[in-house]
Amino acid sequence: MRTVDIIAKKRDGHELGRDEIKFVIRGYTNGEIADYQVAALLMAIYLRGMSSEETVALTEAMLHSGEIVDFSELGRPRVDKHSTGGVGDKTSLVIAPVVAAAGVLVPMISGRALAHSGGTLDKLESIPGFRTDLSLAEFRSTLENVGAALIGQTAEIAPADKKLYALRDVTATVACRPLMAASIMSKKLAEGASGLVLDVKTGSGAFLKNENDARELGLLMISIARGLNKECLVLITDMNQPLGRAVGNSLELIEAIETLKGQGPEDFNCLCRKLSAEMLVMASISADSAAGGQAYDELISSGAALEKMREIIKAQAGDPTVIEKYDLLPRAEQTRDLLSSEAGYVQAIDTEAIGHASMLLGAGRAKLDTEIDLGVGLTVHARIGDQVERNSRLVTIHFNDAERADEAANDIRSAYKIGPAPVDPPQLIKAVLR
Amino acid sequence: MRTVDIIAKKRDGHELGRDEIKFVIRGYTNGEIADYQVAALLMAIYLRGMSSEETVALTEAMLHSGEIVDFSELGRPRVDKHSTGGVGDKTSLVIAPVVAAAGVLVPMISGRALAHSGGTLDKLESIPGFRTDLSLAEFRSTLENVGAALIGQTAEIAPADKKLYALRDVTATVACRPLMAASIMSKKLAEGASGLVLDVKTGSGAFLKNENDARELGLLMISIARGLNKECLVLITDMNQPLGRAVGNSLELIEAIETLKGQGPEDFNCLCRKLSAEMLVMASISADSAAGGQAYDELISSGAALEKMREIIKAQAGDPTVIEKYDLLPRAEQTRDLLSSEAGYVQAIDTEAIGHASMLLGAGRAKLDTEIDLGVGLTVHARIGDQVERNSRLVTIHFNDAERADEAANDIRSAYKIGPAPVDPPQLIKAVLR
Repeated sequence: MRTVDIIAKKRDGHELGRDEIKFVIRGYTNGEIADYQVAALLMAIYLRGMSSEETVALTEAMLHSGEIVDFSELGRPRVDKHSTGGVGDKTSLVIAPVVAAAGVLVPMISGRALAHSGGTLDKLESIPGFRTDLSLAEFRSTLENVGAALIGQTAEIAPADKKLYALRDVTATVACRPLMAASIMSKKLAEGASGLVLDVKTGSGAFLKNENDARELGLLMISIARGLNKECLVLITDMNQPLGRAVGNSLELIEAIETLKGQGPEDFNCLCRKLSAEMLVMASISADSAAGGQAYDELISSGAALEKMREIIKAQAGDPTVIEKYDLLPRAEQTRDLLSSEAGYVQAIDTEAIGHASMLLGAGRAKLDTEIDLGVGLTVHARIGDQVERNSRLVTIHFNDAERADEAANDIRSAYKIGPAPVDPPQLIKAVLR
Repeated sequence: MRTVDIIAKKRDGHELGRDEIKFVIRGYTNGEIADYQVAALLMAIYLRGMSSEETVALTEAMLHSGEIVDFSELGRPRVDKHSTGGVGDKTSLVIAPVVAAAGVLVPMISGRALAHSGGTLDKLESIPGFRTDLSLAEFRSTLENVGAALIGQTAEIAPADKKLYALRDVTATVACRPLMAASIMSKKLAEGASGLVLDVKTGSGAFLKNENDARELGLLMISIARGLNKECLVLITDMNQPLGRAVGNSLELIEAIETLKGQGPEDFNCLCRKLSAEMLVMASISADSAAGGQAYDELISSGAALEKMREIIKAQAGDPTVIEKYDLLPRAEQTRDLLSSEAGYVQAIDTEAIGHASMLLGAGRAKLDTEIDLGVGLTVHARIGDQVERNSRLVTIHFNDAERADEAANDIRSAYKIGPAPVDPPQLIKAVLR
């Protein structure tokens, strides 16, 4: 088997065999196949597509490129959630403690900020001392003792995905459904969960702008899960505006803690409630989605979820007193309000541009090795459908560098489209696929 | 400017700007842009295409990545020929001495065998002592003294093409019109010729199987030449069967010398005559193509062309007595005749398979660093349209390794399609484009 023949086959639009896919993934992981050959293949896949059989084969090959964690002997349901990424998406920080507080194991392997999107690991690392680099053994013991553990992708888990993801990022092959599906699923199936709730985002701040693309990605991931005997449910959710009010690492952590205290913004709390409810149903803790929602409300109002958050922070070497003392967290030195220059209704928000503005302030990464500023970010006041006056606050910018704040302000201003006609806010949960 | 944005632009089917193309070629040549990014871009170009403006810009960027030789002070017409490659194509070995014997300078930069196709340099190196690695200074003085010089691509000439060609070979992006055109033209425009006759091959043994693709490549190269003020003429010629009888390095050299002696196979001699005639017209030595053909005949029958071949061999440190003593050349130890298993007419020959069979014997390269066996190869007896009996000779295999000969024999047998109906041989020269 020659790599160049496999590239040519995909280039010409043919379906690759399971063996061919395995050959490439194995060779790339162990360094026998060069990155330039894989780069050409990725572009051919981007432009020619992959069948669902090919995507399942790719996922399996990536899954088996490393260790597969098995927590079945812990004897409790194990459910995880994954989001395809967006702006202000801090649901993991709420869901993990809520669902763990209900007795479900939540083994969660998360990512870092990339392009305009934030990353759960960076948000957690704004807590002094918090370790996201647990070994697999520590991951296991934390999960067993606390019920949830949130870590980064280790060298052992799906190493093929780690290499491929970095290569896709620099070869303009990120937003490709089969590659996205295989990347997400290979990691998630390796981490030992028995069921998976997927939050596939669509809209101006998502990687997939188009709802149909999001649905197809969702269906593809369900078929992969089915092919590998895992339970899987997909929510298609709106990313046409930032989720919640906070964008930026410590700002988002605070919003998540506020939500665990029952004081979160409505849209964000609503999505956390829905995702948690589906996870509780999948874990057979709740009979149906409505009961799962009620359980969520109770776990919040009783303080059980907040208590679980404290345990998780402690178990991962963080300082749990941040829950009461937000000033222990990194904060930007200055803030500035960005005001509307006209009266009207917010028609649309270019949410990718909002994410870019936050990245520009230092909250995100232009490259994988960029050092990020955990304190900076945005507070979003005006949302789609809101009526604004001239000089109403649109966004508060939290910054440490005035020049960058100017640039960010310009970008945010052009991201907001304000017009005279009233508009309905977008529906947050667009579809449930199973 | 970011490479990843340029890749994304081409991926989405947009036209790249001159500056963007220059940025990539410069960055790749000096090592600032990684090969995996260029590999992804090449595949995007392969699948999305390039406009003729983009192709001209690419050619110019590649041309200016190295030195451009200027022979204009030699005060004589300078015409070169290039072929897109095929099986048994040894025209350069005849044309260079013929055209130089007429007083035209022929500065010829040639390639090596790759994939199923042979290479002029390898054929020449079957002559004991022959040097193809002349420096640019030696190239110039040989050209001035002898009228022709045949060398390999030096490090100074179009280094971007050298890197890109090697990358295309391993990323399945060879058979792509704009990339082929820019590769050929950047080299040929750098070597100091004022005019260029291009032999674009089409058929089962060519890189472009389809005649329309070949025509489009031809027109593209003409428009590039025009954009850069060079004369250019294109012949579209048949590669549905090996050219001449000999396939393999020393075998092809012998056939070329036989042709210079007036004893070449008809089809091969005919193509050499046509190409030489057009070069003589371009150099204003002959008034028209018919007069050019007559001049060719005279240069052969007078022995002037053979004498020029002797001079070229001597000037490039080869042993000119090979012209009389073929047993000074590398020869295979054994031969075996492959016989037809049925009676009928040769309907078709999978010529790429014939080329592969020859490569398999050791005459060609599977990789750039493969050592080749200069003595092995094939003598092709049965051509399309020929009537064969059961046990007629199809091909003689010249080999040094019996196992490889068995494999080659199998491949050759399946390459021949023999049927009951008489068929016309393919037309050798399909079109002249200018």
